[in-house]
Amino acid sequence: MELPSKHITEAVEQLATLPGIGRKTALRLALHLLKQNKDEVERFAGSFINMRNKIQFCRSCHNISDNEICSICNNPKRNKKFICVVEDMRDVIAIENTRQFFGIYHVLGGIISPVDGIGPSDLNIDSLVEKVQKGEVNEIVLALSTTMEGDTTNYYLFKRLKEFNISISTIARGVAVGDDLEYTDELTLGKSILNRIPYENSFVKS
Amino acid sequence: MELPSKHITEAVEQLATLPGIGRKTALRLALHLLKQNKDEVERFAGSFINMRNKIQFCRSCHNISDNEICSICNNPKRNKKFICVVEDMRDVIAIENTRQFFGIYHVLGGIISPVDGIGPSDLNIDSLVEKVQKGEVNEIVLALSTTMEGDTTNYYLFKRLKEFNISISTIARGVAVGDDLEYTDELTLGKSILNRIPYENSFVKS
Repeated sequence: MELPSKHITEAVEQLATLPGIGRKTALRLALHLLKQNKDEVERFAGSFINMRNKIQFCRSCHNISDNEICSICNNPKRNKKFICVVEDMRDVIAIENTRQFFGIYHVLGGIISPVDGIGPSDLNIDSLVEKVQKGEVNEIVLALSTTMEGDTTNYYLFKRLKEFNISISTIARGVAVGDDLEYTDELTLGKSILNRIPYENSFVKS
Repeated sequence: MELPSKHITEAVEQLATLPGIGRKTALRLALHLLKQNKDEVERFAGSFINMRNKIQFCRSCHNISDNEICSICNNPKRNKKFICVVEDMRDVIAIENTRQFFGIYHVLGGIISPVDGIGPSDLNIDSLVEKVQKGEVNEIVLALSTTMEGDTTNYYLFKRLKEFNISISTIARGVAVGDDLEYTDELTLGKSILNRIPYENSFVKS
């Protein structure tokens, strides 16, 4: 697909670097941008430079923040001794939306994935271990994806943390609320039987 | 979905203005950009400003171009008296890829769509009529989408152009090459019978 202008070619190539955006979609997006006026395109482009240059990461939990310490770590009502370990900001938002967690977070910034060349040293793991060493933590819940990479990261974290006298758990794996047993995969269904819970704890609270 | 930083909120809102990109996808793209280094983000953002400011439109056919006259209009081998009318650049690329058309194009820059507030005066229609008036054109083929809006635009163009002594056609509508009759919609199948073609013309040339 040869485009009639090198400027649009460059814009399409840049858009196609985004995850999940192929060249055809990128071209559609570039043509959309071409139809906008210059101010709008400048605001569009400027927002990315601004974000990249101005955003900070919370010194305590490494979540994205506009300040040195994010609003969750700064909230006196949150239990600072109960830490939920997550992969990135999206997981923090997802868990916050459940309104079931009142501790603080620790954002790893990724998960261990040898295929993508991401090892433990690329993640915010040392600072978590440090917090635990200092005795600042009572309990850790690992809330990573239920994938091979998530399991590997869980195992690595468990190995680093088990010497300390804290409680370490992972989020429960089981049949999703509202799901048909018939369509649940065997692995999940098997886990949900092994990890069965007392009936009186099984109600979905909202 | 409240985000922990106003800078990422702004970037997500800008990305979500793109067609087909919702807020969840926009957030994924913004987090991807945050992981890139500053130079890469500047190149990314700069490509859009550069495209918007530097791109030209061919004076003759209104296609996107780096020069005053695009390479197709400038090609001495193309038949300047045979014009294919299309909606935008993507259609030019699609038709060029067929290697079946050797005239030149006329890019309308959209199609008549009252729902979107696009009328004939928003499109490059007057310059097409002008070319025909000047006697520069022998034949026009209308290659617009086979939608209500495409049909409306075809009809409007036909009304404006029928007083001149030129041949006006639309691209054929029929069963796509490789398609099963069983799964072809009735309207298309009906048209393909009404517009049947002599057997000896029916082979797909490549």
